[in-house]
Amino acid sequence: MDLETIKNPRFLKKLSNKELEQLSADIRKFLIEKLAATGGHIGPNLGVVELTVALHKVFDSPKDKFLWDVGHQSYVHKILTGRAGEFDTLRKYKGLCGFPKRSESEHDVWETGHSSTSLSGAMGMVIARDLKKTDETIIPIIGDGALTGGMALEALNHIGHEQKDMIVILNDNEMSIAPNVGALHSVLGRLRTAGKYQWVKDELEMLLKKIPAVGGALASTAERVKDSLKYLLVSGVFFEELGFTYLGPIDGHSYEDLLENLRYAKKTKGPVLMHVITKKGKGYSPAEDDKLGNWHGTPAYKIDTGDFVKPVISAPSWSGLVSETVRKIAREDSRVVAVTPAMPVGSKLLGFAEEFPDRMFDVGIAEQHATTMAAGLAAQNMKPFLAIYSTFLQRAYDQVVHDVCRQNLNVFFGIDRAGLVGADGETHQGVFDIAFMRHLPNMVMMMPKDENEGQHMVNTALKYDGGPIAMRYPRGNGLGVEMDEELKQIPIGSWEVLKEGSDAAILTFGTTIGMAMEAAALLEKQNISVKVVNARFIKPMDESMLEELFMKNIPILTIEEAVLQGGFGSAVMEFAHDRRYHHSVIERMGIPDTFIEHGSVTKLLEEIGMTVEQTVAAIKRMTPIKEKRA
Amino acid sequence: MDLETIKNPRFLKKLSNKELEQLSADIRKFLIEKLAATGGHIGPNLGVVELTVALHKVFDSPKDKFLWDVGHQSYVHKILTGRAGEFDTLRKYKGLCGFPKRSESEHDVWETGHSSTSLSGAMGMVIARDLKKTDETIIPIIGDGALTGGMALEALNHIGHEQKDMIVILNDNEMSIAPNVGALHSVLGRLRTAGKYQWVKDELEMLLKKIPAVGGALASTAERVKDSLKYLLVSGVFFEELGFTYLGPIDGHSYEDLLENLRYAKKTKGPVLMHVITKKGKGYSPAEDDKLGNWHGTPAYKIDTGDFVKPVISAPSWSGLVSETVRKIAREDSRVVAVTPAMPVGSKLLGFAEEFPDRMFDVGIAEQHATTMAAGLAAQNMKPFLAIYSTFLQRAYDQVVHDVCRQNLNVFFGIDRAGLVGADGETHQGVFDIAFMRHLPNMVMMMPKDENEGQHMVNTALKYDGGPIAMRYPRGNGLGVEMDEELKQIPIGSWEVLKEGSDAAILTFGTTIGMAMEAAALLEKQNISVKVVNARFIKPMDESMLEELFMKNIPILTIEEAVLQGGFGSAVMEFAHDRRYHHSVIERMGIPDTFIEHGSVTKLLEEIGMTVEQTVAAIKRMTPIKEKRA
Repeated sequence: MDLETIKNPRFLKKLSNKELEQLSADIRKFLIEKLAATGGHIGPNLGVVELTVALHKVFDSPKDKFLWDVGHQSYVHKILTGRAGEFDTLRKYKGLCGFPKRSESEHDVWETGHSSTSLSGAMGMVIARDLKKTDETIIPIIGDGALTGGMALEALNHIGHEQKDMIVILNDNEMSIAPNVGALHSVLGRLRTAGKYQWVKDELEMLLKKIPAVGGALASTAERVKDSLKYLLVSGVFFEELGFTYLGPIDGHSYEDLLENLRYAKKTKGPVLMHVITKKGKGYSPAEDDKLGNWHGTPAYKIDTGDFVKPVISAPSWSGLVSETVRKIAREDSRVVAVTPAMPVGSKLLGFAEEFPDRMFDVGIAEQHATTMAAGLAAQNMKPFLAIYSTFLQRAYDQVVHDVCRQNLNVFFGIDRAGLVGADGETHQGVFDIAFMRHLPNMVMMMPKDENEGQHMVNTALKYDGGPIAMRYPRGNGLGVEMDEELKQIPIGSWEVLKEGSDAAILTFGTTIGMAMEAAALLEKQNISVKVVNARFIKPMDESMLEELFMKNIPILTIEEAVLQGGFGSAVMEFAHDRRYHHSVIERMGIPDTFIEHGSVTKLLEEIGMTVEQTVAAIKRMTPIKEKRA
Repeated sequence: MDLETIKNPRFLKKLSNKELEQLSADIRKFLIEKLAATGGHIGPNLGVVELTVALHKVFDSPKDKFLWDVGHQSYVHKILTGRAGEFDTLRKYKGLCGFPKRSESEHDVWETGHSSTSLSGAMGMVIARDLKKTDETIIPIIGDGALTGGMALEALNHIGHEQKDMIVILNDNEMSIAPNVGALHSVLGRLRTAGKYQWVKDELEMLLKKIPAVGGALASTAERVKDSLKYLLVSGVFFEELGFTYLGPIDGHSYEDLLENLRYAKKTKGPVLMHVITKKGKGYSPAEDDKLGNWHGTPAYKIDTGDFVKPVISAPSWSGLVSETVRKIAREDSRVVAVTPAMPVGSKLLGFAEEFPDRMFDVGIAEQHATTMAAGLAAQNMKPFLAIYSTFLQRAYDQVVHDVCRQNLNVFFGIDRAGLVGADGETHQGVFDIAFMRHLPNMVMMMPKDENEGQHMVNTALKYDGGPIAMRYPRGNGLGVEMDEELKQIPIGSWEVLKEGSDAAILTFGTTIGMAMEAAALLEKQNISVKVVNARFIKPMDESMLEELFMKNIPILTIEEAVLQGGFGSAVMEFAHDRRYHHSVIERMGIPDTFIEHGSVTKLLEEIGMTVEQTVAAIKRMTPIKEKRA
């Protein structure tokens, strides 16, 4: 059928299983074709076609409420709720969001992006329903990876305790983004391989053979019974212990199984956990055969070959540069270990893992544990490198404060994807890290101007013994600059003058340095001489350079790809006032006090007003008018 | 024995069980007597006397490493490691810390204060040990309450997966601070009541009676077998599923049981979870009989009666004022519900719970879940009041950003214990909240000058429909001011002039207003006229009042009981520069860039320099010298 004619999911009620299967094929074809042009989360969505269709057939959205955990698997839901026509704009500026978005549709009742939030959100909605005495069904859909996030486990514990009606769909595809880790994953693995019905007979026979021995030593027999019964009783016992009715495992690509179990779940009182096995990438072989997670989220691709359409870039990726430099240093320093919360691919740690399998720890989606485990490593004189995306480090704020900074331990935070990230949008922008880390005692925070300085900063961080040290770096690739052979150390707190100037100064770091230099060059032609400083240490700042600048009493523009409130610019103001240099004009350029939606980084920066033109305009606003030479 | 003669725990090796019991009695007597004078965490420590002694007997600290989760139960450990002589200074300025402290002793290898961190820290140490090929035993000791914290569950999952040697002591006293909640708690309850050995016989008999029926319908019989065996297999299955060897339940007050199991655990490969049942307050009846958690942490008390020695205070406690005002409003607004992460007593929510049992949710130690559940409630048009201590809100930073602020939901954050908290010290000071919340889009943040304004602010918050709103309030009691009968609303973002003045202005809020007024009165006598503003909205600020102030170009002193970097004072500077009022002298008074240790709040403020004298001095520094009249 033409999916763009779908207005809402009501048409599903009348369809037979056979018609649903045809619809699934149409949806897969649509997704494969559309995402070939735009890129997007193809793997997760191909995996949940039948599950999503079945949910919308059995339940009545928006009265019944689906909470898509993480949310990148909501494309099928978007198609069924009247948004197929917008897929050409997927993840583009002002286009269809890659995650559920309440402003897009009444069927999107809960916004996600970060993982493991759906169960808590659902619990709030369940309580609200029961207090209002309405009768909607609340259905969080959570992956096996997201289930290992601490807050999801907190929620499971509370939901099981309260015994209110809720249907939790556990979408088990054996992957989060990379393959999953953790003991809970083993629990699921045993459930998966030992499905309830297949093995009952064998196990019971074995049991009967053993039981007659129950004569003499009761306790030891009990132990034996226990062992032999383990696989029998394991089924769901973990979740049933927590107070859930466990249904599963269920074939997530069979309408018969899905519909039967969903209808059963709907009738069941108390919390139900429905364990659905799906295959990521189902129906498109390049995605289906993917073992590493490359087809989790993709750029545009060629449908027939599955080749990614990528611009040719000669510069190394930032993640790769950092991880490979850590790897190089790890060869000489056995104290260096790497920790990642489920991002070995994104953080480009596979090379490190191959060379140092004993020194690489992927802890799963568990940012809090990752951070405090790094603190534990540092407490025993190791040098942990914690590779973590800026936006996900938000989840470990207390661990950074309480375990790392307070104990002043040598943890090296590799803050990846710092600054705007583009298509993933507002849940993923790495714009808060300076504001939530700058005020922490003992923290050193830096950002390099290019990948050569980046490698020296990694070296600086791993040689530093004074406590926690963080290096921000952006999503994407370096500038393609020449790389020094030998790793150097950069003095902590030292800035670098990139261009001299006497009429004004720009203080900035990282990705915005290019813009500052370009603006300064343009201004030079207009007889305005601007000093440009690579303020590579956000904390501590270069106080002697600041003194020197303020002594000259020239206007200062600070630029940061991060929120302005409490950010780097504010730090400069704090310094100025603390030292009574309040006469200087200081202007800040950065992210305003609002959440920044999805779109290309260039487009977003333009919208915010972080451009060469605006930089030129700002400096002109601040400097007295001078006649142009010539 | 005289406990003050203990230098280190080696003397324990030679003691018989009988001698250990005598030692336990001596330790209990010591604790009861010492804490009667100083106050402290008497309940938790009386509960772990035998456990701590047994640990130090079987293992060799500091080579073997104990990680005390939360850490308030480390007093016995402090006594056994040579610190009995310092108990008179417990929790006092420069005195013995109430938590493990690395600078105090080589036996304190991991600092705590917040809960649920010990397993992650231990995992880091275990990895470090195995990489360094040393052979120390790593032993985190965690309570059943702390185990429900998400990061502890993340860690359990990872530890079970990695299968490295570690001994987790689960100190199960059926309480965290208040009685525990959560499904995991039920798991533990079943383990406790159905100890492994007592019921094996009964269960096996029942099993045998049922087995012969296995002829016809295999599946349904399997279900019956499963039910009847549930209690048999439940023992430890939850933890064994996660990959642990489960030992228990063990009587935590029996040296025989403890020593035997600890020695067995020491020999066992892979992770062991040793489930120890203890009684909080053991050996001192007022504490032992406590059901609510009043004897968790206490002020000084009279030993014979168990009466707390409290100063007579007529003013209501801040927690009580806020919770009772919420309760009053809840009578008229059925959308109001209360959520607390394990602090119903501390947050004084027992009255609310009694009146509205259906609208009160204690989710256990689970700040992340509490926050996002509140978001879920608000998404369904409820008005959740989340009562949470400032320091514990740190653990839900991402949930505040991603779930509440981003979706702009009407969650009312009651940020309790904001500012310095005193005796609990650096892990508990509520000094970061402004810096970690001010930069969040959509957030409104306020702090009242007294309890009357406080009640109006609570009303304002619960009437507000524009998104998240937070009210900070300090530990302790109000000022005893007269209370309005009728609740009012305070216009969002409005400040209040408390005293007019023309030479300088002080902008401050909450607890520091008294100091500012006193300083202004002293300065008035010296012919310096200071305006004092109750800057009760930290965000948004009163822009028209700020404009007016800056137009006058008088020096401004901001005062906040919170970290200075990125704080309220910085917000004022940001405003000044954004509007080009950079000529004003602005000085900030607040918490410097360091962790503040324990001690009385008065003493700490004095050390920091937040006093009337320093306020006077600051204003004098900033204002031109004027001759004194008369």
